[in-house]
Amino acid sequence: MTDPRMIEHAKFIVQKSTRVKKNDNVVVHVDDDGMDLAVEIYKEAAGIGAHSIIIALPSEALRGELANASRDALTSTPKHILSLISSCDVYIGIRSDSNLRSLASTDPRNLALYSKGQYPINETRLTKRWCLTQYPNEAYAQEAGMSLREYQDFVYGAILLDVDEQHNRMEKLDSIMKAADKIRLIGDRTNLEFSIKGRIPVISDPIHNVPSGEVFTAPLDTSANGEIYFDLPAIRLGREVRGVHLNFKDGKAVDLSAEENEDFLREQLNIDEGAKRLGEFGVGMNLKIDRFTKNILFDEKIGGTIHLAMGRAYKENGGTNESILHWDFIKNMRRGRIMMDDKTIQENGRFLWEARPPSRQNKRE
Amino acid sequence: MTDPRMIEHAKFIVQKSTRVKKNDNVVVHVDDDGMDLAVEIYKEAAGIGAHSIIIALPSEALRGELANASRDALTSTPKHILSLISSCDVYIGIRSDSNLRSLASTDPRNLALYSKGQYPINETRLTKRWCLTQYPNEAYAQEAGMSLREYQDFVYGAILLDVDEQHNRMEKLDSIMKAADKIRLIGDRTNLEFSIKGRIPVISDPIHNVPSGEVFTAPLDTSANGEIYFDLPAIRLGREVRGVHLNFKDGKAVDLSAEENEDFLREQLNIDEGAKRLGEFGVGMNLKIDRFTKNILFDEKIGGTIHLAMGRAYKENGGTNESILHWDFIKNMRRGRIMMDDKTIQENGRFLWEARPPSRQNKRE
Repeated sequence: MTDPRMIEHAKFIVQKSTRVKKNDNVVVHVDDDGMDLAVEIYKEAAGIGAHSIIIALPSEALRGELANASRDALTSTPKHILSLISSCDVYIGIRSDSNLRSLASTDPRNLALYSKGQYPINETRLTKRWCLTQYPNEAYAQEAGMSLREYQDFVYGAILLDVDEQHNRMEKLDSIMKAADKIRLIGDRTNLEFSIKGRIPVISDPIHNVPSGEVFTAPLDTSANGEIYFDLPAIRLGREVRGVHLNFKDGKAVDLSAEENEDFLREQLNIDEGAKRLGEFGVGMNLKIDRFTKNILFDEKIGGTIHLAMGRAYKENGGTNESILHWDFIKNMRRGRIMMDDKTIQENGRFLWEARPPSRQNKRE
Repeated sequence: MTDPRMIEHAKFIVQKSTRVKKNDNVVVHVDDDGMDLAVEIYKEAAGIGAHSIIIALPSEALRGELANASRDALTSTPKHILSLISSCDVYIGIRSDSNLRSLASTDPRNLALYSKGQYPINETRLTKRWCLTQYPNEAYAQEAGMSLREYQDFVYGAILLDVDEQHNRMEKLDSIMKAADKIRLIGDRTNLEFSIKGRIPVISDPIHNVPSGEVFTAPLDTSANGEIYFDLPAIRLGREVRGVHLNFKDGKAVDLSAEENEDFLREQLNIDEGAKRLGEFGVGMNLKIDRFTKNILFDEKIGGTIHLAMGRAYKENGGTNESILHWDFIKNMRRGRIMMDDKTIQENGRFLWEARPPSRQNKRE
């Protein structure tokens, strides 16, 4: 039986996130299991007078392409897909891979070539009213260490929350970040400083990301100095990199190591010049996301965490770093400190202006 | 487990039917269950250096759109989809509805409006290297009155046959039709004459239709006179119309009746002026298709049948009739006669130059 929350989710995407209106041309992208949600979105949009197309890239199709296609074919941009995306108004991406390791044995170089070919399509997508969301399936539940029913509760809980209350909490942090120059992150093997001066912090309501709940900005390209250790795994294209330690000098990661999959980390950060620089600094603010589930769409919003992305910065932040990479690394700050212009604003995951740490607050809800 | 014949099917589509080549932009369209085949086609095309996109229109999405969308929205053409189709080289359609009655309670007027909106897209598709094929699923097996395993044997048997031998049989009929003026069909409540003079008969190898096996042409628009009774049901958009009887005067169906769903028949033939005229006359030539399965892609190719389409004629036949409709009606000729220029060429399903009727020949294969 259809989970009634899936229909609420579809309505949320269409009405609140992408605000579909009459005559909009909508693209809904699914990979494996999200077709039911795509169909509900399609029907909801049709009722408003919009036209939708569902496009599917099953993980086995992508795996086969990365294995079979020539270097030339991988790096060239499919013109018909670019044409479709260019002529749409709204782009909705649904994550629902039926197996999160289906690309595990794919040559990372082919992934990098493929990313180059897809770059113009991805850039065009970002000029539209776009949204990325999650369909709770067995694979993601397994990855999160939950049953499917538990995972559905987790996903819909994080999405169908009181977005106004969440917005108010983020506004407070945003006003501080707007005025800030230097950010310092302190913790285990971590003492990193960078500047966000003149950049534009953005409150992430669930518009582009559903769920959302983060405040993020773009560090100045050459400002990062010091070291940082990420205690949570960083996942990209089916690969898990653990225990990442980065050392920055004048904005560039000059030294890097990882306890697991260091080669893949190195490969990705060598894709281009910008991949070695910071593209994003974000602070997780969604209190319904109370645990790490190995899914960046959720993990980067965990209350009490921060994340840094290597690679492309967002233009909405006034960011300037360019790269085909944008890879988030998350750090739990429950044993750490965030300082802005030499003042502590968060200690052990708790903002100084909040009564209780997020973990306890969660339990009361 | 994947049926190995599905991979043969995908190779057939890519290599023999649409002849995908390097740098081709390919669109693969599925409705419900055909994603596995779409993925194999995608991978096969990727190996050749082509780029594919899979687009999906699940039957519940279409049903919801037809139920929810306004008249305006239904009749307007989605520009982003038109843009995608315009910029592709190859279009592959896979039939795999998971329920062949999902549109049964849809208002036929909404179907007609939707057809108008889709018309430019469908016309553009026909200018590409296009192909329509079948994925054998439970719904089509049930409709055919078979188990899935039996139906898979039937479908793959009709597709993966000796296409050269089939071509030679069709060439014989084609040469006769090229020289013919008057066609007369005689049988139960049937005595219909029309002209195909100057039109271009086409041998249908499995290029556009997979499976194929028919020789078809376009009747002259004002030439049909007489009556015809179709003993096999005619199916369109989930509706089954039985016992159709049409009376033609100077090319136009001036009188029509049906034993079941006459209203729907009338509705469809009133869509526009061309819908009341013949767009196609075809002769079924696939000897592996030896029974009626309520699926036009197969039924119109049954050895020993003919079909007439109401509505749009194909330009490749030099046809001139225009309509948003193209609806095939099949007649079993096992108890009938086909005459060309007053000479009998087929009697009771057997061509005069063939030793045995197709039904017996089938049993020996």
